Amino acid sequence: MSEALKKARLAHDAAPRLAAAPASVRSRAIEAAGRLVLERAGEICAANARDLERARAAGMSAPLQDRLLLDQARIESIAASLREISRQEDPVGRVVGGSTLASGVRVERLRVPLGVVAIVYEARPNVTADAFALCVRSGNACVLKGGSAAAESCAALAAACADALAEAGLPADAVQYVEDDAGHTETAALIRAHGLVDVLIPRGGASLIRSCVEGATVPVIETGTGNCHIYLHRDADVEKAVGIVVNAKCSRPGVCNAAESLLVDDCAADRLLPPVLRALSEHGVQLVGDRRACEVAASAGVAMGEATDDDWGTEYLDLKMSVACVEDVDAAVAHVNRYSTHHSEAIVSESYAACERFLAGVDSAAVYANASTRFTDGGVFGLGGEIGISTQKLHARGPMGAEALTTTKYVIRGEGQVR
Amino acid sequence: MSEALKKARLAHDAAPRLAAAPASVRSRAIEAAGRLVLERAGEICAANARDLERARAAGMSAPLQDRLLLDQARIESIAASLREISRQEDPVGRVVGGSTLASGVRVERLRVPLGVVAIVYEARPNVTADAFALCVRSGNACVLKGGSAAAESCAALAAACADALAEAGLPADAVQYVEDDAGHTETAALIRAHGLVDVLIPRGGASLIRSCVEGATVPVIETGTGNCHIYLHRDADVEKAVGIVVNAKCSRPGVCNAAESLLVDDCAADRLLPPVLRALSEHGVQLVGDRRACEVAASAGVAMGEATDDDWGTEYLDLKMSVACVEDVDAAVAHVNRYSTHHSEAIVSESYAACERFLAGVDSAAVYANASTRFTDGGVFGLGGEIGISTQKLHARGPMGAEALTTTKYVIRGEGQVR
Repeated sequence: MSEALKKARLAHDAAPRLAAAPASVRSRAIEAAGRLVLERAGEICAANARDLERARAAGMSAPLQDRLLLDQARIESIAASLREISRQEDPVGRVVGGSTLASGVRVERLRVPLGVVAIVYEARPNVTADAFALCVRSGNACVLKGGSAAAESCAALAAACADALAEAGLPADAVQYVEDDAGHTETAALIRAHGLVDVLIPRGGASLIRSCVEGATVPVIETGTGNCHIYLHRDADVEKAVGIVVNAKCSRPGVCNAAESLLVDDCAADRLLPPVLRALSEHGVQLVGDRRACEVAASAGVAMGEATDDDWGTEYLDLKMSVACVEDVDAAVAHVNRYSTHHSEAIVSESYAACERFLAGVDSAAVYANASTRFTDGGVFGLGGEIGISTQKLHARGPMGAEALTTTKYVIRGEGQVR
Repeated sequence: MSEALKKARLAHDAAPRLAAAPASVRSRAIEAAGRLVLERAGEICAANARDLERARAAGMSAPLQDRLLLDQARIESIAASLREISRQEDPVGRVVGGSTLASGVRVERLRVPLGVVAIVYEARPNVTADAFALCVRSGNACVLKGGSAAAESCAALAAACADALAEAGLPADAVQYVEDDAGHTETAALIRAHGLVDVLIPRGGASLIRSCVEGATVPVIETGTGNCHIYLHRDADVEKAVGIVVNAKCSRPGVCNAAESLLVDDCAADRLLPPVLRALSEHGVQLVGDRRACEVAASAGVAMGEATDDDWGTEYLDLKMSVACVEDVDAAVAHVNRYSTHHSEAIVSESYAACERFLAGVDSAAVYANASTRFTDGGVFGLGGEIGISTQKLHARGPMGAEALTTTKYVIRGEGQVR
């Protein structure tokens, strides 16, 4: 049996004890993890330094190295996040419905943990602690598989989490870290652990997610690909348009809620595009557009390449943006619904009717009027951290907090009633 | 392109108009369907008579023929169910959360339709109307594929549903019926219509569901297999035990919430089993059990065969029941969690502690203390009809009404805020 399957089995067997533990005990475990991570900062940073050394030798790019890096400040931020989740409201046991039937039978619908949550992610050590905390908050055991470039950092963090469970009197086996796996055979085994893993959440780039969705036999929640759009309606305020587009594109181009594509009403392109394109250009954004957008860009003195059909469906995750002119709000909605990954989209307009039409028509997890798509975030939405942002419709949609890691159960009490 | 894919595409294209229609218009369509079904009773019954004739010629069993039969009374019951769903509360647009963020941005979380729901079912014509009504109630387009033995009956009912949509000013294409398909190629195409079908709900026996789960590339919700258990704890009241077991096993043995397996505390088997087994035997139930159960049955003068390991995991859907003796409530919980399909299970006991331990420990959609598992039903639970009973944990668990056919969407309104 593969290591991953063995670990999934251990998590599976530990799950009922975690599910049965009171919220206060699970809070204590998350809090203890925050303390242990701080106490072991030196050792965790040393493990991270070894990961980084190997990554540098292997020629990892600077942004990815930065994502992998743990220093004292980042350790403190991980600990702070654990402390915050330890204080969060517990979703387990919440009564979400119920009634007394005509026969006198009492029906209650409760939130209960899913069981075992598997998370496959990239070389971002902090995901280890975050995922652990949200799983414990929701009463789930977890199997974690981080990117192999972060193997030692993740293992050190996972060890602190396991010790924290034990300290709180919970089974340490309820957090499992699947070790380095250059050949991906362990990951492949994990995503096929039907009957042991209740849900798999891949966190990372499109290729990681695609390989999980295609290979998994356990239920998967697709997360985090964001080909997000900003649509400038003819009644857009120019200043708001510039502010929102620049923020959505440039404030953090590598994240999933960053904008990738700009739509503008044909009849207002001459008024709206020049200031927006100039601002983007000043922020170093490479632009591609359709013929009409290229004409406007040329007359505004902004460089713009010709977009190909592929551009409309591409999540650049970089300082690059596609620009298309559309007839009206209905055409904008149709374009978005065709090319979007259904993550986050925004309209900029002072027209009440246009905003409401866009908000109702666009079929995405989060739809904005006159605000940046960058707000789509579990922390910002008040979920207290997130395990991912679901771009699918079943079970969870948008930022997923602890509640998204629960299911419900009907509990029915009677005195011998039959039907 | 296959017929099923063409129809899925038509439903997909009609879905936004259905999703955008006000609740009152969708209510009118469901109500009109009820009226049209009554008006066309003669024609629908004639189509059904042709289906029945073919079914008889093909040697269909009497219970399946009865399930296929439509007569005036059953048409009236279909129409009544449509009327009832037309008056139900509409889940679409319900605000299920939200807040105003520090920046003044208003976040609202709304229920929205899934889009296109595909339902693959057996030769039960009434499912056509029920599925249509719950899909329209939840703002979804639907693609229906009934068992080929009911082809003419289902097509006649689906035609009435399509005409009802048109009468209410909605696109008739939002209900699609996939015609007779002896080779199952249309079904195979339908369950692979990724991007056109948002969720597939198979309704029927274990083999239909398994073939859908294994073959589908669209998201599936597993429904309706019920290897349900009744556990008689040492402190069970004998009268309640007899009443509940007989009702759960015998009142309708062919349905998924019927009990299939009986567990009893070893130390109380001599007191509890004889009256229960005698009552089951009087109702014509064939019994199989473990060694200890067989001994008790023998001394009570009740016939009982020896159970094989396969029996514990079998859903008989017939007047047959397996009987096992267990050490205590923890052993009962472990047995149930191992062999159950996680549908409905019940404990009979006057012990508060035993009941609460069973209710908390059993990992099924519906868990009962001192009541029959037969209550697990969307109508009984007040969901107003059901599209199926989910035995999985993601998205929906237990009886699924209209709300289970929706997802949520975040709608965010601002005045130019950026992050």
